[in-house]
Amino acid sequence: MALILCDVGPRDGLQNEAVAFPPVVRAELCRRLAGAGLPRVEAVSFVREDRVPQMAGAEEVAAALPDGAARFSGLALNERGYDRLVAAALPEVHVAFAATESFQQRNAGSSVEDGLAMANAIVARARADGIEAIVTLSVAFGCPFEGRVDPERVVELAAQVDADEVVLADTIGVATPRQVRGLVELVAGLGKRTGAHLHNTRNTGYANAVAALEGGAAVLDASVGGLGGCPFAPRATGNIATEDLVYLLEGEGIPTGVDLDALIATSEWMAGRLGRPLEGLLYRAGRFPSS
Amino acid sequence: MALILCDVGPRDGLQNEAVAFPPVVRAELCRRLAGAGLPRVEAVSFVREDRVPQMAGAEEVAAALPDGAARFSGLALNERGYDRLVAAALPEVHVAFAATESFQQRNAGSSVEDGLAMANAIVARARADGIEAIVTLSVAFGCPFEGRVDPERVVELAAQVDADEVVLADTIGVATPRQVRGLVELVAGLGKRTGAHLHNTRNTGYANAVAALEGGAAVLDASVGGLGGCPFAPRATGNIATEDLVYLLEGEGIPTGVDLDALIATSEWMAGRLGRPLEGLLYRAGRFPSS
Repeated sequence: MALILCDVGPRDGLQNEAVAFPPVVRAELCRRLAGAGLPRVEAVSFVREDRVPQMAGAEEVAAALPDGAARFSGLALNERGYDRLVAAALPEVHVAFAATESFQQRNAGSSVEDGLAMANAIVARARADGIEAIVTLSVAFGCPFEGRVDPERVVELAAQVDADEVVLADTIGVATPRQVRGLVELVAGLGKRTGAHLHNTRNTGYANAVAALEGGAAVLDASVGGLGGCPFAPRATGNIATEDLVYLLEGEGIPTGVDLDALIATSEWMAGRLGRPLEGLLYRAGRFPSS
Repeated sequence: MALILCDVGPRDGLQNEAVAFPPVVRAELCRRLAGAGLPRVEAVSFVREDRVPQMAGAEEVAAALPDGAARFSGLALNERGYDRLVAAALPEVHVAFAATESFQQRNAGSSVEDGLAMANAIVARARADGIEAIVTLSVAFGCPFEGRVDPERVVELAAQVDADEVVLADTIGVATPRQVRGLVELVAGLGKRTGAHLHNTRNTGYANAVAALEGGAAVLDASVGGLGGCPFAPRATGNIATEDLVYLLEGEGIPTGVDLDALIATSEWMAGRLGRPLEGLLYRAGRFPSS
């Protein structure tokens, strides 16, 4: 089973940047990522624009996305969001809920049970509509309010998710390799396609990606340039950088189908738009051997 | 065999910083690292002060080092440097030469054969003097001039090194985990205590550290805060950060004997002295669960 990379930069990345880009810039980012060969791109979030101005105009972004091999997705946290995704004709929906009560309450104002029920309601509608549904379990390794999360609890929740694919998110970047390998193994053992969404907040992100693959992960999230951050750790960095991950995977002999030079150029473009260096290191140091 | 950490921040780190600190500050850094429980600290380099002003006053640093459990070392690249180390009464000498002709010529103005001979000459004197000698093979994975380095060549060189301990250095931060695991395995297979000196230039450093341990490494170099850089890649970051590595190792269940809070405090102090954020991420994000 070939590894699938999903670039979440346009959504999870840009949502956590201070600057709110207009839809035309976010669509351009999506186009560049698709052009670089990313098989999946999380393009938008269908949330309230007054709450998340960085994601305003999701429909405009969706309307400007190119046809081609890349599959674009949107995040929906409730049925209203899902309705918007259907209207925008996106082929894949991402849903998320937290593995801990404290995080789900503070982040979504609901219980974990309600979060799971909402996720499954959207999965059911997506199945009927012929839309791919992927459910992400947030704070699957550690929670800023509850500390380390019991893997048995995460497995219990993952088993109740009706989607064929479950992504385990290290939302605040605290996981270490053994923990990631172990939890991915357990969830993959449920027979679900299992993904990992890793943040490099404490420099464990890339080692965790290797561990996730060893545990049987079929999907890895990453964001070009390491775009994004973490609202719960203001000085913290965001997702692992897609191009740095691709460099590592190439060294491991794992094909990704991604054009590394095109990705590096996309990070350089994004750094220019943001007016600051991104967290990714490869685009600064250069690939090796140079192409 | 317990893992040994060597903090190379005072030498490999500060040598590659633009600011040259006086001996009193560098000795203070060494004291803090020893106080944090690091078993080894690379404190100084006995090189020409007109060429490397960051390392000026090595004797003053050495004279100010505390007694205690930490073993302090100095880098010597020739017998004159070794004489200075003996006079300064340091118990451990580090010697280095490159695995490629181009790097050794540009960096040391000699051939690899001459570099190896010089290393062995110092190892022989150290043995007679009761001083620990550790030989580092620079650019053991990739060279900025020659590209990827043939592991068989590195093993051939390591086999000719008379020291009991050989450290494989990813000087320019290009290695990937499979490569590191493989080369460490081969060199450890020679019966030598094997270390890895990893830079995080392309975000592979921490995954490489895990791979080095899997390959049988008994020693890992790191620098507090990720101090340092790479003269061959001006936009590049330096060594893996000791505290980030310790955080990861704790998650792996590998004891280090290091006090993480004391290390984090040392990075905060160093960032203040340098007037810029360091590359390490843990000291910014905080440990987890918080202590």
